[in-house]
Amino acid sequence: MRILLVPSGFKESISAEKAAICMKNGIRRVLSKAKVVSLPLVDGGEGFVNTMVKWTQGSLSHQLVTGPIRQQTEASIGFLGYSSPKTAVIEVASAAGLKWVPRDQRNPERTTSYGVGELICAALDQGAKRILIGCGDSGTHDGGIGMAQALGVRFLDPSGHRIDVREGAHVIGQIASIDLSTIDPRLQQVSIDVACNWHNILCGPHGVTRVFGRQKGATEKQLLRLEKSFEHLSTLIEKTTGHTVDQIPGGGASGGLGAGLYGLLGATLHPRYDIIMKQLDLDRYLQETDLVLTAEGSIDFQTPRGKIPAEVATRAKRYGKPVIAIAGMIGEGARLNYRHGIDVYTSILQSPVPLEKAMANTEAWLEDSVESLMRTLWIGQELAATQYQRQVASGQ
Amino acid sequence: MRILLVPSGFKESISAEKAAICMKNGIRRVLSKAKVVSLPLVDGGEGFVNTMVKWTQGSLSHQLVTGPIRQQTEASIGFLGYSSPKTAVIEVASAAGLKWVPRDQRNPERTTSYGVGELICAALDQGAKRILIGCGDSGTHDGGIGMAQALGVRFLDPSGHRIDVREGAHVIGQIASIDLSTIDPRLQQVSIDVACNWHNILCGPHGVTRVFGRQKGATEKQLLRLEKSFEHLSTLIEKTTGHTVDQIPGGGASGGLGAGLYGLLGATLHPRYDIIMKQLDLDRYLQETDLVLTAEGSIDFQTPRGKIPAEVATRAKRYGKPVIAIAGMIGEGARLNYRHGIDVYTSILQSPVPLEKAMANTEAWLEDSVESLMRTLWIGQELAATQYQRQVASGQ
Repeated sequence: MRILLVPSGFKESISAEKAAICMKNGIRRVLSKAKVVSLPLVDGGEGFVNTMVKWTQGSLSHQLVTGPIRQQTEASIGFLGYSSPKTAVIEVASAAGLKWVPRDQRNPERTTSYGVGELICAALDQGAKRILIGCGDSGTHDGGIGMAQALGVRFLDPSGHRIDVREGAHVIGQIASIDLSTIDPRLQQVSIDVACNWHNILCGPHGVTRVFGRQKGATEKQLLRLEKSFEHLSTLIEKTTGHTVDQIPGGGASGGLGAGLYGLLGATLHPRYDIIMKQLDLDRYLQETDLVLTAEGSIDFQTPRGKIPAEVATRAKRYGKPVIAIAGMIGEGARLNYRHGIDVYTSILQSPVPLEKAMANTEAWLEDSVESLMRTLWIGQELAATQYQRQVASGQ
Repeated sequence: MRILLVPSGFKESISAEKAAICMKNGIRRVLSKAKVVSLPLVDGGEGFVNTMVKWTQGSLSHQLVTGPIRQQTEASIGFLGYSSPKTAVIEVASAAGLKWVPRDQRNPERTTSYGVGELICAALDQGAKRILIGCGDSGTHDGGIGMAQALGVRFLDPSGHRIDVREGAHVIGQIASIDLSTIDPRLQQVSIDVACNWHNILCGPHGVTRVFGRQKGATEKQLLRLEKSFEHLSTLIEKTTGHTVDQIPGGGASGGLGAGLYGLLGATLHPRYDIIMKQLDLDRYLQETDLVLTAEGSIDFQTPRGKIPAEVATRAKRYGKPVIAIAGMIGEGARLNYRHGIDVYTSILQSPVPLEKAMANTEAWLEDSVESLMRTLWIGQELAATQYQRQVASGQ
């Protein structure tokens, strides 16, 4: 039997890589000879660079950049192996991640994506002809203006004076025009592809401010101001470049950075798993397996909205492959997933304990859970054989 | 596919019957045509009479008896359908159950099994030629002396005066001899079969006092006194009847009632599921199924020590049938069960919640869990078909 493992990480518990190891251990307890391929998946957030570099046997280095609250921060930058044109890979989480903003300093009007621009600059310095950017787990909410300034874009007030937008989103209201004439000319020669959550948009009632603003520390007043600021920025970008950014899918990613990358740098936005799944050649592996096992911290109504198990399952079904999803927990609306290519979902929980205790057991329980699945599959296979023999015996 | 459901109840949550219904619902969601047979199992405790009567389409009536703390109690008495000789079935839980002893009155030196004797008497009155007694969930701890007195046995002090042993175990020390000459003569004409936990013995460090005394409310001092009392009773019984009861399997059942039934009434003790499994003709059903599903509140190291899933699995393996055990929770040492015929065990838990919350979800989660199992089995069957086709295609 050929089994493909494509887990996500279990949030705040174990990484996708660790999950794949546990799952393989569980399989090995039952099927010592199964051919197992592990493809731990990440979204554009933390782990994006590491996974891409590891998978392609590329290289990884570090770069000092300006963090989200203007502190010096060490961010990683990778180059894919076996790739032409020369491809850099960076992640927003590394340069401007929420982890770099202490809880008591979370003010989404005062954080900057400047470090992401510095990382792009570093990629250009090192000769990148293509840049892959992973969005996710960001701590900034400035619509990408900081990032753009780091690459030479100038934001001007009504009198034509330059505004230092590293101060964060609270200055957006003062911007009267955007000057792209001073942008780093090397950007003309590179293509930028961005992995973002396709459901994040910049403006409106389902916009990124309303959906993620509180998580980044916004008060109700700030939410209103930020929404207005993003609408203003959207109008400015459209006036400057002709690009409409207020409702494009992914425009709201990483606090509006998606809109800035697309509107000001001409980057292409992609649904967040497309880049990584294409780079990992997931389709080929799906074709060459008998069974797909995926996993995530929770399987619920949100899973079909772009989470890894549903993304994998949808692709697996193109090739008619069965998909089992293993979950830390099963939440409301989980049955929806039966319509998105997941044939079975099951929880790893073994005893009624609070979340922290359950999370401490994730590794052991995941192994056990996969063992149980393999044992059940084995019974299914035996039952098929019995039924087949019965049919033969009865001459059907 | 033929599926046999032989669940236990989930302690303090759902009955075995309810469990079987949920499991069947879960199967129906996936396999509408499977042939499902439900055989909800109970041990000798609560539900024993109901299950036996229901299964054989027998009759059930009620009888006023003396409860464990000498209150008037309504106990049930059943007669099996289709049975010859005429067979009565009673349960200790109904006449002398722990449920009849309020928590603040739990004193194991002061409770009596007298009501069990009255039930036996009622069975004789109604013409029973065979009596099945289920032990379990008892609230008494008198070695069966109350029961024996109700049937005419006399317990005498050193001066030959009769002691009223309805007072409970605290009078055992005063007993100097037992007079069996006044016992109900009809007992000579009937056979009494007792379903008891085979691991319960009367005396010693693993005796019933040490193991269950605290649960019945004993203090450390009382435990010591009760242990001494049971040793004394054991000696008296041996002197009177020649029967050695201190270490026989099941002698400790229901606070030593097993020893009294065996030693004073000549009853035969059986491992607790033997009677019910024989009466339900479990072996025939096991032979005629493709798959066995069992269930219990917990699967752990205690399961192989005589719990329903392991008892069923051991029997199922005589006929080579696969067994899946579904558990409310999976506890320490669960892997031991792989050596006792259980091929897979899985927990119904879906989210990390405290026990009471999990218990409130038992029905829904059990259904979902069985659905997941059926879906996984189905994948296993499909995989077998794929592999078979591949073999045919490659000419093997």
